[in-house]
Amino acid sequence: MAAPTYDDVLAAAKRLGPHVQQTPILESSLLNKWLGHRILFKAECLQTIGAFKLRGAVNMLARCAEQNRLPRQVVANSSGNHAQAVAYAASLYNIPATIFAAQSISPVKAAATESYGAKVQCYATRSEADQAVQTAAADPDTLWIPPFDHPDIIAGQATATHEALLQTGPVDAVFAPCGGGGLLSGAVVSTQALQPQAQIIGAEPEQANDASRSLQSGTIESLSSPPDTLADGAATPSVGEHTFGFLQQLDDFYEVNEVQIAYWTQWLQHLLKLHIEPTSALSMAAVTAWAVENPTPKTALVILSGGNISAATMQKIWQQDYLLQPPNLTQQDDK
Amino acid sequence: MAAPTYDDVLAAAKRLGPHVQQTPILESSLLNKWLGHRILFKAECLQTIGAFKLRGAVNMLARCAEQNRLPRQVVANSSGNHAQAVAYAASLYNIPATIFAAQSISPVKAAATESYGAKVQCYATRSEADQAVQTAAADPDTLWIPPFDHPDIIAGQATATHEALLQTGPVDAVFAPCGGGGLLSGAVVSTQALQPQAQIIGAEPEQANDASRSLQSGTIESLSSPPDTLADGAATPSVGEHTFGFLQQLDDFYEVNEVQIAYWTQWLQHLLKLHIEPTSALSMAAVTAWAVENPTPKTALVILSGGNISAATMQKIWQQDYLLQPPNLTQQDDK
Repeated sequence: MAAPTYDDVLAAAKRLGPHVQQTPILESSLLNKWLGHRILFKAECLQTIGAFKLRGAVNMLARCAEQNRLPRQVVANSSGNHAQAVAYAASLYNIPATIFAAQSISPVKAAATESYGAKVQCYATRSEADQAVQTAAADPDTLWIPPFDHPDIIAGQATATHEALLQTGPVDAVFAPCGGGGLLSGAVVSTQALQPQAQIIGAEPEQANDASRSLQSGTIESLSSPPDTLADGAATPSVGEHTFGFLQQLDDFYEVNEVQIAYWTQWLQHLLKLHIEPTSALSMAAVTAWAVENPTPKTALVILSGGNISAATMQKIWQQDYLLQPPNLTQQDDK
Repeated sequence: MAAPTYDDVLAAAKRLGPHVQQTPILESSLLNKWLGHRILFKAECLQTIGAFKLRGAVNMLARCAEQNRLPRQVVANSSGNHAQAVAYAASLYNIPATIFAAQSISPVKAAATESYGAKVQCYATRSEADQAVQTAAADPDTLWIPPFDHPDIIAGQATATHEALLQTGPVDAVFAPCGGGGLLSGAVVSTQALQPQAQIIGAEPEQANDASRSLQSGTIESLSSPPDTLADGAATPSVGEHTFGFLQQLDDFYEVNEVQIAYWTQWLQHLLKLHIEPTSALSMAAVTAWAVENPTPKTALVILSGGNISAATMQKIWQQDYLLQPPNLTQQDDK
């Protein structure tokens, strides 16, 4: 399969039109004052199902519909936003969906997935769920909607950045978090086409730094065990063949520690009044470093990936009071 | 001073135009399914300064500007959203502002108020701050912007409901929380003018039930001591002469306990992906009771008042996991 092009993104944007929200761009005057730059946030947490993931799943199915090859059923492996995205996308086409999840899936996410009409099948571990989905997908009437490493998925996720850049006009840099790399790969395709002068910068948890290590070694590296990170949306064990090619075109990439993740989740919730998930806050450690490196005022776009958070994670995020300690920007140089 | 009329609301809406955001209407398909009704939320937490309060403060000053009687300085007594609203409104007209607050003001709210250019003066108690503002307001060059009991403030707050009803079209009921009663009085003026068939329903904390007791006794009752409630925006010790007249025209009024407040703050943050403050969740106890009483599907508008929350309050809200227990609607009948 060829890598997705900007034409694929334009086709995806057209397909998604009736099914996906145009999410707003928000900013905080206080944050802009602190950083000395204008930071524009694309609020994909306000997307239907609460995350950008809907874009890829709907694009894949809508393309099948266009080509008259809709499957009898769809399957997917996910314990997170992709599960809800596939469940909702399948419901748009009245196709039964089964989600293969690790039993560690949060009951709230499982309930949301089921509320869109999908069946959730739980397995002891993530890799057992990944195995089971492959077996199920061997059925010729079944379509597997993969979480990130497919041209249709990447083109769908790319519409988030595409839509945002049309809303904001010119920006100097685009930031997005990295799990499997679908959102960030889409940011590369859309930004290179629409605003080729803009930098594209990624971030992932230090505790799940497979992408960072892969970019350093030049080959795809995997996490050896499930990572312990607040940013569950970026806990993917490794990036894919398709996404890795795009990630290698990034201008910069940051590893973010757990304190920074909790700190920026608090502050973004407080400043933007959005219930963003910790994965959405990853970009801010990169933004603050970029802010210090750029002495003249610039404009950045930050893609907020989603807003699906368990109560347990909310407790962890708010157990310290970071709102009393606005950012010491120079500290960011130490990372 | 005469009570504000719908003409005053229309004039306020025109004045506010350039200074105030048109906030979006959001809804949750899952919540609609649970309740069997369509619930539309006016997201005033996404208003500049994070709350509807900006509308009243700007209306009062913009009216002064129209009449060429802008003061040399403004003062206000508040430890909450009104402080930030007055600070921001004064900055629009380059007028120095001083906020008289109880020293229990959260450091984050004080910092936000100062970030808009105002001076914050702290007093041991709320009543000492209320005393001090009256002394300061005796100066003829100084304008006191009261928190709720003034026709310009009520007309300004009324633009939130006015704007919402133009966005939603016909609804069957309008819900808003009650602190001093400014937002709810505005809801009465705007709803009676635009959609006179719609019910208007208020809610306040059981722990700060002065308005409820006042409505029962027919005279304004006051809280005897500062209330212990998560809904700090509704902790006002008593309603005012102007607002009481409007509150007496409500179709229904509910007292809401602290468990319900925490429960619905969690769920609204989770479902709407908005960082709403507990005061915004008060209406939901009333909505669920209304939902049970109405057997056929109806449409309700809920005004979400704001999104300014301290970390300490976030900790209290999320210390239990209510997301695992979707609402038992019949329980609401026991109140």
